[in-house]
Amino acid sequence: MATPTSCLSFPLLILSLLFSSTFDQISAVGFPINVWPKPTTFFWSHPQAKPLSPIFTIATPYHQYLTPAIERYRRQVLNEHHKPLVSPSVNLTSTTPLQTLTVSVTDLTTPLTHGVNESYALSIPAVGSTAYLKAETAWGAMRGLESFSQLVWGDPLRVASELYIYDSPLFEHRGVMLDTSRNFYGVSDLLRLINAMGMNKLNVFHWHITDSHSFPLVLPSEPDLAGKGSYGEEMKYSPEDVQRVVEFGLERGVRVLPEVDMPAHTGSWAEAYPEIVACANMFWWPAGSAWADRLASEPGTGQLNPLNAKTYEIIKNILRDITTMFPEPFYHGGADEIIPGCWKANPSIQAFMDDNGTLSQLLEIFVNSTFPYIVSLNRTVVYWEDVLLDAEIKVNPSFLPPENTILQTWNNGPNNTKKIVSSGYRAIVSSSDFYYLDCGHGDFLGNDSQYNQPPGSDQGNGGSWCGPFKTWQTIYNYDITYGLSEEEAKLVLGGEVALWSEQADSTVLDPRIWPRTSAMAEALWSGNRDETGMKRYAEATDRLNEWRYRMVTRGIAAEPIQPLWCIRNPGMCNTVNPF
Amino acid sequence: MATPTSCLSFPLLILSLLFSSTFDQISAVGFPINVWPKPTTFFWSHPQAKPLSPIFTIATPYHQYLTPAIERYRRQVLNEHHKPLVSPSVNLTSTTPLQTLTVSVTDLTTPLTHGVNESYALSIPAVGSTAYLKAETAWGAMRGLESFSQLVWGDPLRVASELYIYDSPLFEHRGVMLDTSRNFYGVSDLLRLINAMGMNKLNVFHWHITDSHSFPLVLPSEPDLAGKGSYGEEMKYSPEDVQRVVEFGLERGVRVLPEVDMPAHTGSWAEAYPEIVACANMFWWPAGSAWADRLASEPGTGQLNPLNAKTYEIIKNILRDITTMFPEPFYHGGADEIIPGCWKANPSIQAFMDDNGTLSQLLEIFVNSTFPYIVSLNRTVVYWEDVLLDAEIKVNPSFLPPENTILQTWNNGPNNTKKIVSSGYRAIVSSSDFYYLDCGHGDFLGNDSQYNQPPGSDQGNGGSWCGPFKTWQTIYNYDITYGLSEEEAKLVLGGEVALWSEQADSTVLDPRIWPRTSAMAEALWSGNRDETGMKRYAEATDRLNEWRYRMVTRGIAAEPIQPLWCIRNPGMCNTVNPF
Repeated sequence: MATPTSCLSFPLLILSLLFSSTFDQISAVGFPINVWPKPTTFFWSHPQAKPLSPIFTIATPYHQYLTPAIERYRRQVLNEHHKPLVSPSVNLTSTTPLQTLTVSVTDLTTPLTHGVNESYALSIPAVGSTAYLKAETAWGAMRGLESFSQLVWGDPLRVASELYIYDSPLFEHRGVMLDTSRNFYGVSDLLRLINAMGMNKLNVFHWHITDSHSFPLVLPSEPDLAGKGSYGEEMKYSPEDVQRVVEFGLERGVRVLPEVDMPAHTGSWAEAYPEIVACANMFWWPAGSAWADRLASEPGTGQLNPLNAKTYEIIKNILRDITTMFPEPFYHGGADEIIPGCWKANPSIQAFMDDNGTLSQLLEIFVNSTFPYIVSLNRTVVYWEDVLLDAEIKVNPSFLPPENTILQTWNNGPNNTKKIVSSGYRAIVSSSDFYYLDCGHGDFLGNDSQYNQPPGSDQGNGGSWCGPFKTWQTIYNYDITYGLSEEEAKLVLGGEVALWSEQADSTVLDPRIWPRTSAMAEALWSGNRDETGMKRYAEATDRLNEWRYRMVTRGIAAEPIQPLWCIRNPGMCNTVNPF
Repeated sequence: MATPTSCLSFPLLILSLLFSSTFDQISAVGFPINVWPKPTTFFWSHPQAKPLSPIFTIATPYHQYLTPAIERYRRQVLNEHHKPLVSPSVNLTSTTPLQTLTVSVTDLTTPLTHGVNESYALSIPAVGSTAYLKAETAWGAMRGLESFSQLVWGDPLRVASELYIYDSPLFEHRGVMLDTSRNFYGVSDLLRLINAMGMNKLNVFHWHITDSHSFPLVLPSEPDLAGKGSYGEEMKYSPEDVQRVVEFGLERGVRVLPEVDMPAHTGSWAEAYPEIVACANMFWWPAGSAWADRLASEPGTGQLNPLNAKTYEIIKNILRDITTMFPEPFYHGGADEIIPGCWKANPSIQAFMDDNGTLSQLLEIFVNSTFPYIVSLNRTVVYWEDVLLDAEIKVNPSFLPPENTILQTWNNGPNNTKKIVSSGYRAIVSSSDFYYLDCGHGDFLGNDSQYNQPPGSDQGNGGSWCGPFKTWQTIYNYDITYGLSEEEAKLVLGGEVALWSEQADSTVLDPRIWPRTSAMAEALWSGNRDETGMKRYAEATDRLNEWRYRMVTRGIAAEPIQPLWCIRNPGMCNTVNPF
């Protein structure tokens, strides 16, 4: 229900004047006061500020999720007292404190789904004691509140004034994938992640909940999966935990997109149902075998047997529970890294192959027995690209109608993105060359002789398959629509960084993810180029640095990207010569 | 004063029998109960345990630092209740609880210095209620207490029994270098680091206190250095802080070896004394200049001017204060990375060169004006190898008598170690190819175009000069005496991992350092090979994993090296095929 509270007082005329092309955008001025990700249009011609009243309030109509968000931002704005790392050269041009931020939302009924309008306009006029935030939806209002919070600093409190922002994202899908199966993360870790995502205007938490290593999700219809397949009593997510995560996301405009990976990556299911899992608990790559004959992409074997009717009984129970627990209209069906050796090790599958069945047909049986059911639960299905692009085991595209299917790409950089969209599918980009946050810390295998080379040997990229480490600049500079036509680019919904957890858990969650994910957040929100079309990574350094420190004071242990000295001495840590 | 409390009851005869070569050492049995670093001799033939009494005590004569250590260990042993990740298959063969650990020390007066005897023997007999720890020094007793603490687990408490350890380190210098100038670390960070060092039987905290970026050390005779050169009021170390760090180290057998780097890496001194610092606050690598003409190894310019008498006035004040604050008989004089361009940019130095003076002569003037003074303060001087091995600016060896000089190597792997020891100097190994913990996270420079390459470009090692990331195995497998004769090897005192802090601060201290530094700790304590001479990295994986989890429960956020699943399924995450 749209309630036009203070809409009328919103200075639309001024905004439309300001946003006309005759006004230059302000980029580098006053970076200590900046909003990350950088708004698409940001007008603050003569950096100036006004006091923020200690009894500052935010006025808004009631909304189940926006109202708690507003209360959270009000407290944050009044208590954060951010200290910029470089004292901002901002004039205090008014002594009239800002008393009120009036928030108006055109349609308060719009749910948080893919493609929701996240635009907002924020106006903090030089005169008067009121600022205005206008958005189409509650979710756009949350984006504006975050921007507003980043414009407040100091003790006593200051807020930027004579400032106008009009802002909306370039890409609708801006996410983080976290694997909670290889190592476990507590609910507080997930909430801290989602909270930081909200700060960075990211909107999808892709929760890779289960895998071969553990099955931490407690499902009412299938309690044994976590009961036997989790890492232990304190390493499970109850339905109440899930509800808490989902609600926490809604209060921050972050959708929670669940993935129960299948049919591969299901070794942990065998603890409860050994009869439906092929090759479970076997040694992953037998001595003397060729790489092609391994049983899994990495240790932790097990793939669901598509020929067993019980497989689908259990899957349907899982899917019914999941769709009840997660309101999100996207569901991630997994389907990555199906390894031939595993299925071939199963007698019933061997018999199927002896009957001239192929492994791709086996996958088609699996998809055809699950995909329509997921669609019947009103879900759009996201799959890893492998389901269609794997060299060996893949389905015919006819099994996956593009209207219900989205493919998430992780191999071959822009080449696979192109394959996906040129086939008419929508794509989510998680290129392992750019967006995999775990890469660069070496391989995790035991007994690995590659690290026992004579001194002087080339250490290459350090031995992780997707090494080297992806720096924030590597992430920032990646153009996820690289090489696509304008039409093709429209099918790229956005991107997700991914943290696979072979070598990550609670101890490193924050620094592995932040501030590198902030780099993606800006690239997908307002791009990685300045008004002239040049990549703006140089100018972004100081802003990201400042933002990283602000995240740290907000409780996110983001890793440093430079000595503090560099921020205090802008430009002095740059290079101006090519290496 | 040696007090032979319970020495007589120590089963020396049994030990000497057990340690004879007719008994195999037990390596892989019962890894859930293991001591890290692995003791040199560890006898636990039939893994068995006894209860640990809830009123367990440790008996010992009084010692200023050992007594608090004993109280700390007593509390830890009673309260830790370690849960092994794999249930140990250990028989509870006795119901008589262990009541007392009797500690005897041959010479309680031995101070903590380089080369101190750290050996200990620990005996937990199957019968009776007393265990025995015997050491030559208080510092060896601390090593034994740590081992004992790692042999206790469970709730109710269990302790390994019928167990005998005789243990002493291969290398006398086992350290961690931390740079607290580029980014600041709070005292609590330093204490947590030293605490974890003690757990890993490391004995030297090499504190790289100052550099060009900040001067956080408050010196009573030179208060302006930190007053103007630190990052700020809350980013300084007071003399009381230093005392706390030093005492904390003494209670853990960790020496605190201070470094005030000079004559390069001194930009921060210019805040207080611009007149003694050449090229301070200049842009580090002017546009269009050759690399050879840069002013500093990285942003943050400034090198002391050896021709200014005031330079030595200030240095002598610093040295007097430092030697008062730090009892450690080694002092680190820095002397790394003197860059010609910086000195050349100074008019008085330019005049000296016009007079046919060379930059090496300039360094000789500097060394000759400082080294004898440091020696007169009863210090052995450690320098970075550059002082003798730099290609351009180095001193004649006659300025640095080997009896007072130790060189720390970081370039060219074993080649420079060889150069150092074959010249008769003692060496500390910090090869950047193996022991630099910061490497592999990309370069920190701003405006760096190397990360803006077209997709598909080779990302190499990720762009950090010492990349790739050094995995725990890379560190574990390095033989620091590689290529040396037996005589030469004797001059290798040991090694130090190093964390330079361009991209590190409190947020990542623990996971950058641990558990990788545990890998060095074992390699330098008892080696990286099994009894047959084979590298034991495969067997070490599970033990290190277990140890990493124990460190985490002890409050050290060490990063994970594998999925938890791997530890629960020993051997299943190994590779047995070469990649």
